[in-house]
Amino acid sequence: MDRRLFLKGAALGGAAASTLAAPALAQSRKEMIIVSTWPRDFPGVGMSAQRLAENITRISGGRIQTQYFAAGERVGAFDAFDEVASGNAQAYSAAEYYWAGKHPAFSYFSSVPFGMTNPEWAAWLKFRGGQELWDELSGGFGIKALPAGSTGAQAGGWFNKEIESVDDLRGLTMRIPGLGGAVMSKLGVSVVSLPGGQIYENLVTGAIAATEWVGPYNDYFMKFFDAAKYYYTGGMHEPGGGMCMGFNAQWWADLSEEEKAIVTAACEQEFANSYNEATALNGEYLKRMVDENGVQLRSFSDDAWEGFGEAAEEVFEETADHSDLAARINADFQENLRSLAGYMKDFEVGFVNQRNRVLGL
Amino acid sequence: MDRRLFLKGAALGGAAASTLAAPALAQSRKEMIIVSTWPRDFPGVGMSAQRLAENITRISGGRIQTQYFAAGERVGAFDAFDEVASGNAQAYSAAEYYWAGKHPAFSYFSSVPFGMTNPEWAAWLKFRGGQELWDELSGGFGIKALPAGSTGAQAGGWFNKEIESVDDLRGLTMRIPGLGGAVMSKLGVSVVSLPGGQIYENLVTGAIAATEWVGPYNDYFMKFFDAAKYYYTGGMHEPGGGMCMGFNAQWWADLSEEEKAIVTAACEQEFANSYNEATALNGEYLKRMVDENGVQLRSFSDDAWEGFGEAAEEVFEETADHSDLAARINADFQENLRSLAGYMKDFEVGFVNQRNRVLGL
Repeated sequence: MDRRLFLKGAALGGAAASTLAAPALAQSRKEMIIVSTWPRDFPGVGMSAQRLAENITRISGGRIQTQYFAAGERVGAFDAFDEVASGNAQAYSAAEYYWAGKHPAFSYFSSVPFGMTNPEWAAWLKFRGGQELWDELSGGFGIKALPAGSTGAQAGGWFNKEIESVDDLRGLTMRIPGLGGAVMSKLGVSVVSLPGGQIYENLVTGAIAATEWVGPYNDYFMKFFDAAKYYYTGGMHEPGGGMCMGFNAQWWADLSEEEKAIVTAACEQEFANSYNEATALNGEYLKRMVDENGVQLRSFSDDAWEGFGEAAEEVFEETADHSDLAARINADFQENLRSLAGYMKDFEVGFVNQRNRVLGL
Repeated sequence: MDRRLFLKGAALGGAAASTLAAPALAQSRKEMIIVSTWPRDFPGVGMSAQRLAENITRISGGRIQTQYFAAGERVGAFDAFDEVASGNAQAYSAAEYYWAGKHPAFSYFSSVPFGMTNPEWAAWLKFRGGQELWDELSGGFGIKALPAGSTGAQAGGWFNKEIESVDDLRGLTMRIPGLGGAVMSKLGVSVVSLPGGQIYENLVTGAIAATEWVGPYNDYFMKFFDAAKYYYTGGMHEPGGGMCMGFNAQWWADLSEEEKAIVTAACEQEFANSYNEATALNGEYLKRMVDENGVQLRSFSDDAWEGFGEAAEEVFEETADHSDLAARINADFQENLRSLAGYMKDFEVGFVNQRNRVLGL
């Protein structure tokens, strides 16, 4: 969102607000079919997408009637993009890196290794030009997308042995998608891609030795601890865990300004709420898994982080090599990350470090 | 918000959503007068409150007509609470610690020393029972309030000399309100309370030697660097910087479920957007002040943090002693903080520490 446009309404301010929006009582009802990449009633990301669909109808006072189809109920999870681009449905719920096969730069609009946390990502998208680059990328496919969910910083993953250095990763078979998988691949990991429903059986049978999923709240329900006891804290691969809602671009363009405001408000509300919910529940589920399921919590060593960092640099170079657009998105992302990271360290993160040290937390 | 209630709608899910909300076209228009504690067009918190007022009208399609009055335009900043409690206005925009004279526990619903960051605070309020305690407190005064803004972790403040230990604070006259001021007072600081518009002249004339305000983006416009060159990074006193919208409780109770959903969505959207905006701009304004205004950026020493921590513990004990409600709110806040803090350290904050270390940021 352009910051000047975003603020323009506010600058009008005051009593003027009452004259701005004429009651939209004469507007017609709109149907909005949403196809999702998440299974029905899936804790965390799935429930969040369903809540958003419900809220759009509720906030619009019924003027926008949503119909939500979970993965497989109308089209398969990974067919959601084409279903919306073609106009068969109006919107999808997804993580944008699912479409990396269409264009690798989609990864920057979910989460990338050594990337941005939730507040940094939202700052870039809304107030530092990130949304315009996303619009340019999505627009090429007939899509307009908005941030609409976040898992928070994702866990480093589940391993059946301790990882003390990057050397311990070599030869492991691990389920890890996106650019995080590309980083692991450079470190000698044999990377596989599996949909959520197939990970457990592959881990239990030993077909894979490791997997990442989301964070403690989501991972608890997957029961990976049956086969892999070592659980790693915040990993390098998805620090923001950004989810989105993607709209058919023509449908979006035809919405009134009020309808756009309603859908935007619902998406931004859910972007915050899903992150806040994960923050609220992750600690509780982590404690439960450690206390009741024999989970051994570990953090990657400094050495491992340095190895991840070198590999990530190569991955970004290769991604930028894809095209002019990929190069511009990578450059803008990296520049804004570096501008935002120092402030976070000096303010919110610096505060947490000192608070937790002094309180012994 | 009760998590079960919050999720109930989502559990209905799917195609059912289209039958839930009948179009509210027949609903009557509602007037909503908002009185603010912020000056007109004030960068950061003031612009955020104006944007929220505008968005409620826009999202509701004109069914809720807001009229926003900045501080002094209808009532003085600190008369906003009584104006709403009495029903003369429907809502106020404020930081809740402004009402600590009515009840000290209001401070927990803005930000307290060694307290919660934005995501931790939202997690507590929305998903771990904090909102119910807030409702109990506000309800006693005829008010219902919701989180509606956040500055992010606030700066430690402006000083005309370096602070190397808590001993350097003794005898200083500093403008710092709320429980943060109470902490400073225990360390020998002579604490004064001044509205925003009077700080600059007091600092320039030497009547005060130090002040805190918000963070780099907000502070830039206050020009405190004319008189105090040492600027301290994230302080102990307002780590979440929470702002709110408070409603007349009867007016709120009379809203339809749809109207409550609209106002809640607008408040939650602005809670996130104001925080994201501050995150986006603080680094940029900090750099500007260092490069162009001779600001010396410093961080409090470990010794100072330990002194703050001991003093804060005493302040919380005194606050809890006020009443049963204050004791319950303090206990719930501290328990949830301790439960959330470990997770943040292991995940988002842990990630930022490693990312910044490896990338040299």
